[in-house]
Amino acid sequence: MDFSTADTVFMQQALRLAEEGLNTTTPNPRVGCVLVKDGVVIGEGYHHRAGEPHAEVNALKSVIDRQQLAGATAYVTLEPCSHTGKTGPCADALVDAGIGRLVYAMEDPNPLVAGRGLDKLQRAGVVVDGPLLEEEALSLNLGFVKRMRTGLPLVRCKLAMSLDGRTAMRSGESKWITGPSARADVQKLRARSCAIITGVESVLLDDPLLTVRLPECERQPIRVIVDSQLRVDPSAEVFRQPGTTLVATCDAAKALNSELDTWPLPEKMGHVDLRELLLGLAEHYQCNEVLLETGAKLAGAFVAAGLVDELIVYVAAKLMGSDARPLLELPILTMGASLELTIKDVRAVGPDWRITAIPDPES
Amino acid sequence: MDFSTADTVFMQQALRLAEEGLNTTTPNPRVGCVLVKDGVVIGEGYHHRAGEPHAEVNALKSVIDRQQLAGATAYVTLEPCSHTGKTGPCADALVDAGIGRLVYAMEDPNPLVAGRGLDKLQRAGVVVDGPLLEEEALSLNLGFVKRMRTGLPLVRCKLAMSLDGRTAMRSGESKWITGPSARADVQKLRARSCAIITGVESVLLDDPLLTVRLPECERQPIRVIVDSQLRVDPSAEVFRQPGTTLVATCDAAKALNSELDTWPLPEKMGHVDLRELLLGLAEHYQCNEVLLETGAKLAGAFVAAGLVDELIVYVAAKLMGSDARPLLELPILTMGASLELTIKDVRAVGPDWRITAIPDPES
Repeated sequence: MDFSTADTVFMQQALRLAEEGLNTTTPNPRVGCVLVKDGVVIGEGYHHRAGEPHAEVNALKSVIDRQQLAGATAYVTLEPCSHTGKTGPCADALVDAGIGRLVYAMEDPNPLVAGRGLDKLQRAGVVVDGPLLEEEALSLNLGFVKRMRTGLPLVRCKLAMSLDGRTAMRSGESKWITGPSARADVQKLRARSCAIITGVESVLLDDPLLTVRLPECERQPIRVIVDSQLRVDPSAEVFRQPGTTLVATCDAAKALNSELDTWPLPEKMGHVDLRELLLGLAEHYQCNEVLLETGAKLAGAFVAAGLVDELIVYVAAKLMGSDARPLLELPILTMGASLELTIKDVRAVGPDWRITAIPDPES
Repeated sequence: MDFSTADTVFMQQALRLAEEGLNTTTPNPRVGCVLVKDGVVIGEGYHHRAGEPHAEVNALKSVIDRQQLAGATAYVTLEPCSHTGKTGPCADALVDAGIGRLVYAMEDPNPLVAGRGLDKLQRAGVVVDGPLLEEEALSLNLGFVKRMRTGLPLVRCKLAMSLDGRTAMRSGESKWITGPSARADVQKLRARSCAIITGVESVLLDDPLLTVRLPECERQPIRVIVDSQLRVDPSAEVFRQPGTTLVATCDAAKALNSELDTWPLPEKMGHVDLRELLLGLAEHYQCNEVLLETGAKLAGAFVAAGLVDELIVYVAAKLMGSDARPLLELPILTMGASLELTIKDVRAVGPDWRITAIPDPES
């Protein structure tokens, strides 16, 4: 169907509201809702955090004169739920409130439940229109959508390199390639992630905190150290930070006797099976978005296994030379075997530049 | 002094005119001139090519009613010349025409003649104002200015790399890293250059033409092959192209017996002394702008010697892997020894990106 400009504007407002939950809704999706009567916004809401009311319920609650709800239009960025989870079904709440029309941006990404909330509303006599601004709605919840559809989280691989594509000196020295602005930008990437994965080499070499240090932070992502042979030093800083630090290993025997929060995983060619790790993060920890902050070796292994959805490369205005470590340890012999990407975004971050690239599906 | 908005607008027009000569004025600078009477443009001109009239003379010629020139203002992007070269001194021509005021963008970059043209005009009673838009005027003639001041040409190093900073596979295979738009952009870089330098390795491996293949092209840059041991194959394509191809070598004995247009140069650590090569290109060939189109080794040697003024890196949306050849062969051991750059410009060129960076003077 054709939507009016007003429909588009109200849905954009709902999308902006949804974004308020960027760092907090996990494992739930970010959802926003705007209620409109006679062309005027009468209520709005978004989902704040899991266990708390959904966007629709918050929007309904925000309406001062409940009588206005009769025949109103609800704009929601995601199909309202029809099942009773931690909160009652939103489809029922909208019907009970007397909503006359629902405009949705995208259907429920879970193929087993997609359309059920819309059906319920339609059967109750509500006019249901959508999808509207579906791509924008999808991009807000790429991780949640991927997990619902495939059982895998969205994987972002963050790297910092010099203009000549180097991520550390031969010695491992890498402080600092990029400037404070780029490092502040990484804090935002961490804050929206459910888990941060690093490698034992990075922990041994840099002893990083891997925490979110933003003033408004209310949730630390799970930290996962990939440590096939369980070589990590239990006195590392990362274990003293608030939140959970898991050590993913394939040395099950050592794991048993460790004082650390170990996670035994299947082995693949002598290393932790990275696909199993990601499947486990989705299944057991409901991770929607995972951030890789690793050296060239582990990052290369994730890329080579086709497990990376997004490369975020911070490029510093310097040359580190040809003896320095590569962006990714990735053996490729011919131009034909190159991994093709699509560059989605390039922007300045202080004196550095951030390039966002997506591996091409066929490559 | 303070300039009026009108002054700025007319000088911008003169700068745009100067740019018309971007590919043709060498070894002369690009210069534009606008003549204004009572706020109205009465004439304009630019320098087309060496041996032909200067911008001021072309502008004066373009005025239909010569009487209007009495008391008119001339906007020129470069101080008018006071000496008799291939054409008469422009300062005299402006005085003879009855010009009342001269606004200039920048002085003559040659310290030995700077200010002489302006003096001549002032002594003849012309009001002289400037500099105005000096930085813009400088950027139009960076190569000419550098040659006048230092005896060296401006050196641009053009490189094409994958997002992981690789310029060729281990085998040397490199066709094609970037797409047609980036390669068309390189044609523009060649067209404005006085010389293109490549290495014998590139000639042996790729057999490139190194020509400008733009429809409006009227001048081929000199092609220079750096070939310390004179190993180039005389049947290479580059020798069959229109224009001059020089083979810079430090094997003077072999050079004597070569059928090629050889150029014996001093040796430095077993290779052609690159600084001597550039000094020679400026002195004997009046080269203002030189383009490096070489592999990682020779480009790295130019960078390491501090001879590169501008890096132009085309970044392709692909990963070529860590076995591939580096951007630059450049041995650096510590972060502190990194070469700091300033990124001047980043823009999309088709699906690829072009990054322009300047080495920091202190680095």
